[in-house]
Amino acid sequence: MALIVQKFGGTSVANPDKIKAVAERVLACKKQGNEMVVVLSAMSGETNRFVDFANQMQAIPDPREMDVLLSSGEQVTISLFAMAVKAMGEDAISLLGDQVKIITDKMHTKARIKSINTDLLNKHLKAGKVVVVAGFQGVTEDDNITTLGRGGSDTTAVALAAALQADRCEIFTDVEGVYTTDPNICDSARKIDRITYEEMLELASLGAKVLDIRSVGLAKRYKVPLHVRSTFTETEGTWVVEEDDKMESMQVSGVTYNKNEARITITKVPDQPGTATKIFKPISDAGIIVDMIIQNTQGEAMTDMTFTVPRTDYKKAMELVEKIAADIGAESVSGSPDIAKVSVVGVGMRNHSGIATTMFDTLSSEGINITMISTSEIKISCVVEEKYTELAIRALHKAFDLDQVA
Amino acid sequence: MALIVQKFGGTSVANPDKIKAVAERVLACKKQGNEMVVVLSAMSGETNRFVDFANQMQAIPDPREMDVLLSSGEQVTISLFAMAVKAMGEDAISLLGDQVKIITDKMHTKARIKSINTDLLNKHLKAGKVVVVAGFQGVTEDDNITTLGRGGSDTTAVALAAALQADRCEIFTDVEGVYTTDPNICDSARKIDRITYEEMLELASLGAKVLDIRSVGLAKRYKVPLHVRSTFTETEGTWVVEEDDKMESMQVSGVTYNKNEARITITKVPDQPGTATKIFKPISDAGIIVDMIIQNTQGEAMTDMTFTVPRTDYKKAMELVEKIAADIGAESVSGSPDIAKVSVVGVGMRNHSGIATTMFDTLSSEGINITMISTSEIKISCVVEEKYTELAIRALHKAFDLDQVA
Repeated sequence: MALIVQKFGGTSVANPDKIKAVAERVLACKKQGNEMVVVLSAMSGETNRFVDFANQMQAIPDPREMDVLLSSGEQVTISLFAMAVKAMGEDAISLLGDQVKIITDKMHTKARIKSINTDLLNKHLKAGKVVVVAGFQGVTEDDNITTLGRGGSDTTAVALAAALQADRCEIFTDVEGVYTTDPNICDSARKIDRITYEEMLELASLGAKVLDIRSVGLAKRYKVPLHVRSTFTETEGTWVVEEDDKMESMQVSGVTYNKNEARITITKVPDQPGTATKIFKPISDAGIIVDMIIQNTQGEAMTDMTFTVPRTDYKKAMELVEKIAADIGAESVSGSPDIAKVSVVGVGMRNHSGIATTMFDTLSSEGINITMISTSEIKISCVVEEKYTELAIRALHKAFDLDQVA
Repeated sequence: MALIVQKFGGTSVANPDKIKAVAERVLACKKQGNEMVVVLSAMSGETNRFVDFANQMQAIPDPREMDVLLSSGEQVTISLFAMAVKAMGEDAISLLGDQVKIITDKMHTKARIKSINTDLLNKHLKAGKVVVVAGFQGVTEDDNITTLGRGGSDTTAVALAAALQADRCEIFTDVEGVYTTDPNICDSARKIDRITYEEMLELASLGAKVLDIRSVGLAKRYKVPLHVRSTFTETEGTWVVEEDDKMESMQVSGVTYNKNEARITITKVPDQPGTATKIFKPISDAGIIVDMIIQNTQGEAMTDMTFTVPRTDYKKAMELVEKIAADIGAESVSGSPDIAKVSVVGVGMRNHSGIATTMFDTLSSEGINITMISTSEIKISCVVEEKYTELAIRALHKAFDLDQVA
C-alpha cells in the first residue's frame, strides 16, 4: 500500500464530465490498495473570469481581496469532485487550504508555504477517505487566505507529498511527460523516462510547460519522487527523481531554448573599478532582471560589456543604458531583441569532458554564430540569432544522440 | 454616528457594474458618519449554476460538500465589493463566515447560527473599514463550512446586527418595502411604513417575497430594527419594529393569501377517543405537514374532520387518508386542491372587536363561501375556493380601509 498524491490541473477538471472521469481514475488507483490525496485546480477559464471581474473593480486589484476571489475557484472543483467519488460508492472529503492548515507567509498572490499540518489529512486517510485538497491556496497565521502564484497547485501537491511523506506525487497534465526537446520543433524528440531534480530545474523552459519549477525545487529539497504524466492515457510519464548511477551514463538529458531575452552591448567602456555597479545598479533599480553578463576586455583600459534582459524590458533597458553609457564615457550601445538562448542539460556532463566542444562544433558546422556562452555544472547555454533556434535545437538533439532510445 | 448593517441580495450584485453601484451607495451612507457592515449574497444565477453542477455529480448531493460548493459564491462578491470600495478611496475588508466565526450547528444546507464572535468585526470597524461579510454561510465548531438555507443572507445580516448591537439592519431588495397586500392583485395596495415583528411573521406569505421569515424571528428576539427597502431608489421602505402605541390604532395592517394548500375532508368518522391520532399520526409519519384542522361533530357518535396539507402532498395524502378512513370505519373522503387561505393580520385586532365579523360579512356580500376558519391573536384566516382569491383580497383590502393613507 502506497500513499499517493495526485494533482489535476484546470483542463482536467474543466466541466462535470471531466471531473467524473478524473474521479474514476483516482478510484482505480485507490482500488489497487493505495491511500489517495487529490489536489485540484480551478476549472479552466474560471481564473480568467475572476481576473476580468477584478480588473473592472480596481485598476490594481487589492492583493488580499484577489486571493479571496481566486481561491473560490478550487472550492468549486474539490466539492464537486468529492460528490463524484461518493456517487461512485467510496468516501471522500474536500478540504480548503485553511482547513488543512497550509500556513503561508503574507505575500498575497505569490505566497510561500511555511508549514502544513498533517493531522486532519492523516485522520481522514486512516478513515479510508479520498482526501481532496484545494490547490493553489493557503492561509496566513492570522487567518487571511493566500494564493501561491503561477503553478501553485503543483506546489501544493508536492508540499503535501513532502509533509505526508508520500510514496510519490503524480502531476497529471495534457502531455505525456518531459521531452528531450520541444516536439513541435524536433520530430525525434523522445519522452524522458527518468530525470534528476537538478536537470529538471535547468530544463525550466521545457519543464515550465508541464511542471512548475518551484514545485521541482520543493520536490528536490524533500526528495519527493515526482511523476509527470498524461490525464488522457495510462502510459508512464517522466519520473523526476534523485540522481542514481544509471543516469551518469547519459551525457545530455535534454536540449532546451528560451526566446524571451534580448541582448544589449556597451562598447568601449572605460575599465575602472565600480563600472559594473554604475551600469547594473540603475537597471536593477528599474526592476529589470539581468540574466547573462559577459565582459570582454579590449586592451588595457577598455572593455565591452554584453548582457541579456527580458525581451519585454528591452526598450526600457536600452533607453536606460544609453543614458548610462553617456555618463560613464562609453563609446556606443547596440543590442538586439532577436536572440535565443539554446542550452544542453545533463548531470552526466560532470564526468564527461568534451560536451562544450561538441556543442560549439555542432553549431559552427551549421553556420550558426555564438554571441554569448554561459555554463553551470550541468548546463551549457549559447546565445544565437533567433532565426537559427530550430536548426540549432535539431542539430544538438542529434549530436548528443537524444533521438536514440536510451 | 450609527452602526448600520446593510444586506444586498443576488440581483443587487449580479455583475461588476451593479457591485460598484452598491459600493457607492454604501459609501454615501458611511460618509454621513456611520459605521458600515455589508452582507452580500452570491451573484444571481451562480447558485443555480452550482446546483446544476452538483446534480450532475451525485443524485442527492452530499450536504457537507454542497455547502463547500455554494459558499464559494459569496466569496466572489465580497472580494469584488471590497476592491470596489478601495478603488473609491475608502478602506474595506472582506470576511468569510469562518473568518468572522459565525458558528452554526452541523445541519448542513440549513444550519442555524449558534454564536457570532464580534472581535474581528469590531477591530476592523474601529479601523474605519467597511466590513464586507459573506452572507448565507457559517462554520461548525469543528471547522466545516455550513450554509443557512433559503433566505440565509437575511439571517446573516440580522444576526450580525444583533451581535454587534447595531442601530439598524437594512435589507435591500427589488421592491420598495412590505405592502398592505399583493400589488399585483390590488391596485390600491400601499407600502406599509411601520409594522411589528409579530405582524411581519404572520404576513409570511407576503413577506417571504421581500424578507426571509427566519430573519424576522431573529430580529424580534434581539429587537433589531429592520428596514426593508429598495436597492434602486432612495425612498424609505418598511420598518419592522417593536410594537408601539401608535400602531394600536390600526386594526388591520395587511391582507395576505396562500395558494399552496389543499383541503381534505373525512365524513362521518366514528367519534371515539384516539381517532385523531389514528388519522394524523400516519400522515405525519409520511412527512406531510398538516396546517389547519377543523372538527365538526355531527350528532353524538359521528364527526367530520377537515384539514389542509401542502398542495404538493395532496395526492399522496389522499391515498393515505382513503386507507385510514376505511380502517377507522369513516363514511367517505373528499377533498380539493383548488383552495386559497385568505388572512387579515394586525396587532390592533387585539383591542378591537368585530374584525372577524367584518371579514365574514365582506366575503359573504361578495358571494364567497368560507370552508374553514382559523384565528390567532393577531390574524384571522379563511379558506375559500381558489378562484375567489383576488376578489376576496380586493374586498378585504377596501373593507379594512387599507387603501387609505394612514
